[in-house]
Amino acid sequence: MSDPKLPPKDVEKYASEFLASNLKWAQRMNQAFPQYFPNSSAKQEPKILWVGCSDSRVQESDATTSLPGNVFVHRNIANQFHLDDDNALSVLAYALAELGAQHVVIVGHRHCGGAISAMNEAARAPEPGKAKLQLTPSYSPLGRNVLHSSHITDKQDETPRDPKEALSRWLVPLVGHIRQLALPKQEEVALDVIIEENVKVQVNNLTKLDSFIKKSAKARPVWVHGWVYDFSTGFVKDLEITQVLG
Amino acid sequence: MSDPKLPPKDVEKYASEFLASNLKWAQRMNQAFPQYFPNSSAKQEPKILWVGCSDSRVQESDATTSLPGNVFVHRNIANQFHLDDDNALSVLAYALAELGAQHVVIVGHRHCGGAISAMNEAARAPEPGKAKLQLTPSYSPLGRNVLHSSHITDKQDETPRDPKEALSRWLVPLVGHIRQLALPKQEEVALDVIIEENVKVQVNNLTKLDSFIKKSAKARPVWVHGWVYDFSTGFVKDLEITQVLG
Repeated sequence: MSDPKLPPKDVEKYASEFLASNLKWAQRMNQAFPQYFPNSSAKQEPKILWVGCSDSRVQESDATTSLPGNVFVHRNIANQFHLDDDNALSVLAYALAELGAQHVVIVGHRHCGGAISAMNEAARAPEPGKAKLQLTPSYSPLGRNVLHSSHITDKQDETPRDPKEALSRWLVPLVGHIRQLALPKQEEVALDVIIEENVKVQVNNLTKLDSFIKKSAKARPVWVHGWVYDFSTGFVKDLEITQVLG
Repeated sequence: MSDPKLPPKDVEKYASEFLASNLKWAQRMNQAFPQYFPNSSAKQEPKILWVGCSDSRVQESDATTSLPGNVFVHRNIANQFHLDDDNALSVLAYALAELGAQHVVIVGHRHCGGAISAMNEAARAPEPGKAKLQLTPSYSPLGRNVLHSSHITDKQDETPRDPKEALSRWLVPLVGHIRQLALPKQEEVALDVIIEENVKVQVNNLTKLDSFIKKSAKARPVWVHGWVYDFSTGFVKDLEITQVLG
């Protein structure tokens, strides 16, 4: 890859540079190591579901030296697993019920920007009016499901939600949790505590899905782990909070 | 990594095998190539936001030969970008407004299990009663936002949604779109069409966020691309449907 700090005039080419890199890589791999690529007629059998952060410095295939087919992946801001989030829940359903995965790993990481945002927000005095606004999408006081069920339509709402408001809402549970913590004064130490606490909360969220896991895992146990990755060293830390469900 | 088809008794060890692989890799890299790891005091400056599928056979860092710091990532079932999904919207907001990314790539892939599920569902006759059930979380006819705004609480709902119902709801927009398509009879060809159409729909969804993009990108353009990856060959196909927003 070229230098990440290119002059602005080259920004337009970023995507085509990735395409050019892909072409070279795929050609080389097909010559040197074609068996690297999974057979399209075989079913995937991932060993773990990785629920991690979107952060560009956390590459799960690096951190686990994993081959294609090993790790099923969901990545979002600050590795959240909200129990009312169809996006993450559907990934879990697919991994466990369709593919038979038996390990779920919540992976936080040090220096997480989402956790920093939540820490800063938690440091402000809570404003009930503002919180209410954040929790309610701006286009409607009722939100997605009411619109759907009243219209009985397969179409999505035409008016999109505001992405910045979505980000605020997304971090609300984490902000709330941070406000309950007795944190060390030094900011970097406090951030590490928040990052580990955040992983624990998501692992705990998954334990509330025990009855679903019992049904879908068909008498096989499912292990839920909490890890923290440090992208500046490459090491994964196991928080040793593994829960056995199912 | 060890053989993916281990006898069942070894399943418990899967996660610890990943941890052991990580330890070896991180030790080796710190000795041989420590500059591989990003400096924790520098801000990430990803060049692209990759919105792709959770499929374990699609490793975006492989496909783009990318280094840590290059690609901000959101992965979910069948690479969807729903305009009422706080999870994906918050990733977009973070990538564009906080990190200044100017390329968003929706990446479908051939042999997508989520697309196959949607294709099979679309082949069934629509049942309005069933669709209504799918669109409404089982614990409440009103859903998340109403509960939140009426209680004005920072806590999440205690009763989790059913993950399998979440998966059905997640695929409803795609199922609806497939029903509108005139598809070739041969199933594998039809699936390829669906996968490309699905990418086009998500790119089109992003164009509806033009006013947000204008605000957050501060007069810089944002390019939205549609690609399809073939994990059995490693090649990315550019659908050449790039939109310039902002």
